[in-house]
Amino acid sequence: MELISKSEKINTSISIGEEELFNEQTCRIMAGPCAVESRDQIMFTADKLAEMGIKIFRAGSFKPRTNPYAFQGAHEQGLEWLEEVKKTYGMKIITETSDSTNFPLVEKTTDIIQIGAKAMYDYAILRMAGRSSKPVLLKRHFGATIDELFKMADYILTEGNKNIMFCERGIRTFETSSRFTLDLCGAAVIKNQSRIPLILDPSHSMGWSFGVPDIAKACVAFGCEGILIEVHHNPAEALCDKDQALDLKQFKELYDTMKAIGNAIGKEVK
Amino acid sequence: MELISKSEKINTSISIGEEELFNEQTCRIMAGPCAVESRDQIMFTADKLAEMGIKIFRAGSFKPRTNPYAFQGAHEQGLEWLEEVKKTYGMKIITETSDSTNFPLVEKTTDIIQIGAKAMYDYAILRMAGRSSKPVLLKRHFGATIDELFKMADYILTEGNKNIMFCERGIRTFETSSRFTLDLCGAAVIKNQSRIPLILDPSHSMGWSFGVPDIAKACVAFGCEGILIEVHHNPAEALCDKDQALDLKQFKELYDTMKAIGNAIGKEVK
Amino acid sequence: MELISKSEKINTSISIGEEELFNEQTCRIMAGPCAVESRDQIMFTADKLAEMGIKIFRAGSFKPRTNPYAFQGAHEQGLEWLEEVKKTYGMKIITETSDSTNFPLVEKTTDIIQIGAKAMYDYAILRMAGRSSKPVLLKRHFGATIDELFKMADYILTEGNKNIMFCERGIRTFETSSRFTLDLCGAAVIKNQSRIPLILDPSHSMGWSFGVPDIAKACVAFGCEGILIEVHHNPAEALCDKDQALDLKQFKELYDTMKAIGNAIGKEVK
Amino acid sequence: MELISKSEKINTSISIGEEELFNEQTCRIMAGPCAVESRDQIMFTADKLAEMGIKIFRAGSFKPRTNPYAFQGAHEQGLEWLEEVKKTYGMKIITETSDSTNFPLVEKTTDIIQIGAKAMYDYAILRMAGRSSKPVLLKRHFGATIDELFKMADYILTEGNKNIMFCERGIRTFETSSRFTLDLCGAAVIKNQSRIPLILDPSHSMGWSFGVPDIAKACVAFGCEGILIEVHHNPAEALCDKDQALDLKQFKELYDTMKAIGNAIGKEVK
Repeated sequence: MELISKSEKINTSISIGEEELFNEQTCRIMAGPCAVESRDQIMFTADKLAEMGIKIFRAGSFKPRTNPYAFQGAHEQGLEWLEEVKKTYGMKIITETSDSTNFPLVEKTTDIIQIGAKAMYDYAILRMAGRSSKPVLLKRHFGATIDELFKMADYILTEGNKNIMFCERGIRTFETSSRFTLDLCGAAVIKNQSRIPLILDPSHSMGWSFGVPDIAKACVAFGCEGILIEVHHNPAEALCDKDQALDLKQFKELYDTMKAIGNAIGKEVK
Repeated sequence: MELISKSEKINTSISIGEEELFNEQTCRIMAGPCAVESRDQIMFTADKLAEMGIKIFRAGSFKPRTNPYAFQGAHEQGLEWLEEVKKTYGMKIITETSDSTNFPLVEKTTDIIQIGAKAMYDYAILRMAGRSSKPVLLKRHFGATIDELFKMADYILTEGNKNIMFCERGIRTFETSSRFTLDLCGAAVIKNQSRIPLILDPSHSMGWSFGVPDIAKACVAFGCEGILIEVHHNPAEALCDKDQALDLKQFKELYDTMKAIGNAIGKEVK
Repeated sequence: MELISKSEKINTSISIGEEELFNEQTCRIMAGPCAVESRDQIMFTADKLAEMGIKIFRAGSFKPRTNPYAFQGAHEQGLEWLEEVKKTYGMKIITETSDSTNFPLVEKTTDIIQIGAKAMYDYAILRMAGRSSKPVLLKRHFGATIDELFKMADYILTEGNKNIMFCERGIRTFETSSRFTLDLCGAAVIKNQSRIPLILDPSHSMGWSFGVPDIAKACVAFGCEGILIEVHHNPAEALCDKDQALDLKQFKELYDTMKAIGNAIGKEVK
Repeated sequence: MELISKSEKINTSISIGEEELFNEQTCRIMAGPCAVESRDQIMFTADKLAEMGIKIFRAGSFKPRTNPYAFQGAHEQGLEWLEEVKKTYGMKIITETSDSTNFPLVEKTTDIIQIGAKAMYDYAILRMAGRSSKPVLLKRHFGATIDELFKMADYILTEGNKNIMFCERGIRTFETSSRFTLDLCGAAVIKNQSRIPLILDPSHSMGWSFGVPDIAKACVAFGCEGILIEVHHNPAEALCDKDQALDLKQFKELYDTMKAIGNAIGKEVK
């Protein structure tokens, strides 16, 4: 926790290219499907989200699924489609590296390197991310304490990368009626002990779309620097995590409410 | 879960006397100190909160402390002071029954019977509450599943009391940097499976005052029917749970922001 | 933890009548069905267990079931049948008080007052148990820390009862393939910090009979002072917790192996 | 869980060279220090353990420490000393790969590839292990369900390696008086659902040496195929996990008792 908690060592605002996308006055919405499934799916969804004003598109092309027989992602092909999203809509991309062997490929395409929860303890990935010039979003493992999250970030920081964001996406508890348990109390400790930008993920924590809007609204009011949220043009047909995706209409409605909540607490939701 | 989930069997709006205090359009703030400590403390705090517009005063007179050598509450004396708050300020009272032997005394004074987390499985108290004409706030035990909470409420309902509210006040998880872990995902399941009014408790879940305002704001945006929050005129000197109490100034500021968030989501915070 | 950890204040060996049944050289087996169902069931099972040499018969007559519509026990009638077991077979009885209203009845019949996990925080029961002349078995709540277990025992001790036993019966964790998680590591802390007799309950922790024998053997080798185990003459027909009960043949085989393990570690299993 | 649970697809006995070291009739003890610290430490400890009859020596040379500033292991140098243990004492070695970049080095020296708890979700390591001809010990992550453990093993199995062992080394729960919580109930589910050899680790689960012997005895009586235990010639000076290591005298005494327990349950401890 040593380095991370010293504010002068890390960046509290994060830019991609010329644009400052994360800072204390902003709650940045990163939206998109769980997985890259096809070129049509990606371009259609990006088009709709860009139209709403979303600047960062999320979608995984290497999916570290627990079940080895489940859909594992579109791989290199998917990254090419994400490049197309960048060119066509001017959106920034956040996509996940699932293990150290696909890190170089992912890093080349992505604007923000997402280290998934299961990879939070992957020392090979942490070191690679530490040597990258791109910002890193480090997801808290569902079995990790806040203290461990800080220490893993230190592995990145000691390699030189100061552009780190934390993401709380739910911890594993005895309550199984939701997929995970979003730990807002732990998030309050993160805010108290560091100035590192904090991202919250209502989709993975809740796991069921019926609860995602209320939790997303809570996340904005809590005062985080960003939200990672799953949106699919047709959740019933999604190849990955279909139970937790919002459809485009649900997301649009939520997005408007989130903006109003942002006004109430003095943060711009965008 | 059978009865509770059948909406016709329970009341979704709850009145005390003539006044409807809980309903789907309202987020009702119940504020006050953890414990009744002295007449001066109670009257001073109630005066300030009444002035702000708070209608329901919370304070425990029988404190079920884990440590048998800690302050155990002001008992009957405390209830008398709470009666004085009712008469002087016209506020309603919510106070806790800690075990079945003090139930009759507490019931006589209180406007809402609070069944604390540790008493959630106390069948003697549940039956007594079920036979009372007063509304009941049933707190979820920190080790209880949502399913168990519903079943314990059924014990109350089968005795005839239809005025039940649930309170999520944090569950116990592996994360110990906060006192408990507020389970908003579980709360979303409660909302989805029943129409019972839902109260959230940022103070007990967080356990540290630095995090209480952000979590309280999140609770309002989430869309609950009420919030239970600890306010002390001088937290440093509080006899019980002093680390989690807000002072009057902090609370006032929070209250104003909560009202603005309420407007953003279409609920009146009062 | 103050009083409990001071060995001179509590009894490390516990007698019932003239007979010392619990001490550091013994692992005492308490066996019987989860619930008293009928006179025939109780007398038949007691007869078989007495024949094997079991001295303490367990069975609940007030069953604190989570589901209010499930079988709630045989109540006073059940206690009468347990009296008959005492007279006919000379066995001692351990049976549970589920809430403070049935404490006096249970206390009259039972030789050991069992405070169930859900009643661990019931201050009314704790005080009543503290004033009783009978030994108390205090079960750890599935959401309670070791520290809380010690503090609840202090409530009993401060009322004067020095004959307390702890029972670890499984805590609630994220792993749901078993009913609960037997916490042997926590049990090791109990042994290290106090000399209070320690009882382990493989039946409730595991919840599935297939695992109970291996866990029961582990409990003996661990070095506890007693084991609480569910045995039913026909588990498939049991009215309560049928999945975790051993039948008489399975129990006999296990009992013999437990005796051999006892020899290996220098404790007499009986 | 598909493949793992089909017994014909995995090996239930595991040989290293000519020697069958793991099978259902054996409880194999793997002992040694947490970390390779120096040539003297390793050779001295191996000498003592070989003398007692221990056949498999454990010690980590790449230590995936949570704290980036803590001792990180002796690396290649340490592996050379482990080679010397093999040659001098004829012992087999089990040592850990902490991330995919050191897998090839570790694989060359070790007789059993240990995948540590934090690497359980590391798909790069799982695939490498699946292509190796050496047996793999897969430790359950402290936040992983049994179901996830089975699925991660499937990643190894689908690459062709049928010599897999599971290791339960404690899960993370709300109880923090021990380092982790050994999940014997979950282990019983593993035994019930597969015939894969099961190893238990009393040292990491307990975290405090005072509890390790009782838990190790419990593990033997439970009926596992092996035990991984930390032994240090001078625990007070250990560079890693010193609180949980037994000294040589404590281990010798425990080893003798474990053998006696093995006799009682019909397994040979060796």
